[in-house]
Amino acid sequence: MVILGIDPGIAIVGYGIIEYVGNKFNVIDYGAITTKAGMKVEDRLGEIYNSLNDIINKYKPEFMAIEELFYNKNAKTVISVAEARGVTLLSAARKNIPIFEYTPLQVKQAVVGYGRAEKKQVQQMTKILLNLEKVPKPDDTADALAIAICHAHSYNALAKIRY
Amino acid sequence: MVILGIDPGIAIVGYGIIEYVGNKFNVIDYGAITTKAGMKVEDRLGEIYNSLNDIINKYKPEFMAIEELFYNKNAKTVISVAEARGVTLLSAARKNIPIFEYTPLQVKQAVVGYGRAEKKQVQQMTKILLNLEKVPKPDDTADALAIAICHAHSYNALAKIRY
Repeated sequence: MVILGIDPGIAIVGYGIIEYVGNKFNVIDYGAITTKAGMKVEDRLGEIYNSLNDIINKYKPEFMAIEELFYNKNAKTVISVAEARGVTLLSAARKNIPIFEYTPLQVKQAVVGYGRAEKKQVQQMTKILLNLEKVPKPDDTADALAIAICHAHSYNALAKIRY
Repeated sequence: MVILGIDPGIAIVGYGIIEYVGNKFNVIDYGAITTKAGMKVEDRLGEIYNSLNDIINKYKPEFMAIEELFYNKNAKTVISVAEARGVTLLSAARKNIPIFEYTPLQVKQAVVGYGRAEKKQVQQMTKILLNLEKVPKPDDTADALAIAICHAHSYNALAKIRY
């Protein structure tokens, strides 16, 4: 299955596209959509939406896995991040791509096997599991890949229970 | 000028389209886009986006006037409201409709002439200014019309200063 992992944001949207076949990962692409602080919010949202549409059209992911947003995360930016997250969810919904949401705890549990793991441990395990030479930069991109891995593991576990 | 006023939300998006010509208002349409609580967030966002596109295509507003969202407004719903607000901003941005944001204080000031006016006073003044028989229901619709009036008055005042 091809999974698009997303670390949502307004200034930086991390993304990672991975394929998960027979318990093995293939990295297809990863990066970050960035928008400039001086731009109007609606133009930043438009850029994010257009870029995500391009990514979805190019790689045709079967799932979007995205980090859940919490109210207490960052009071100052939570509204603009949530606005961008809404546009991100819309980009998948309009292509009928099922969306799965994961908490940071679930991501850590799925990638490192330990819910209270440090960010660096998650990044190292992401690098190892995906057979990358370096931890991708910025952090948002590494986080997006970790969320995609989380979905692969979670969905697989779910499928084993079901069938 | 034709103004689309919006009271943003995820369960209810109030909207009002008014025309402002020579200090007089013509009401073109108003109502509320509603989405069901049991639906997935992304499907609710999709419905809001589609409905707004229909409204924009039908009435071709020259401006969108929308209420600003504050972090402390309602902790439990602020994230989903902001997600819906992002999709709402996107619908205007993709049609190149300029967006103006107003605080509740600015709306009260512009409609009643007094920034600490009660909600009922704003609704009564909206009814009078727009020559309506009754205060529109739900409140979100009345609020959307008030925001549109606010833009008409504010934009007019701004134009007088400029030229």
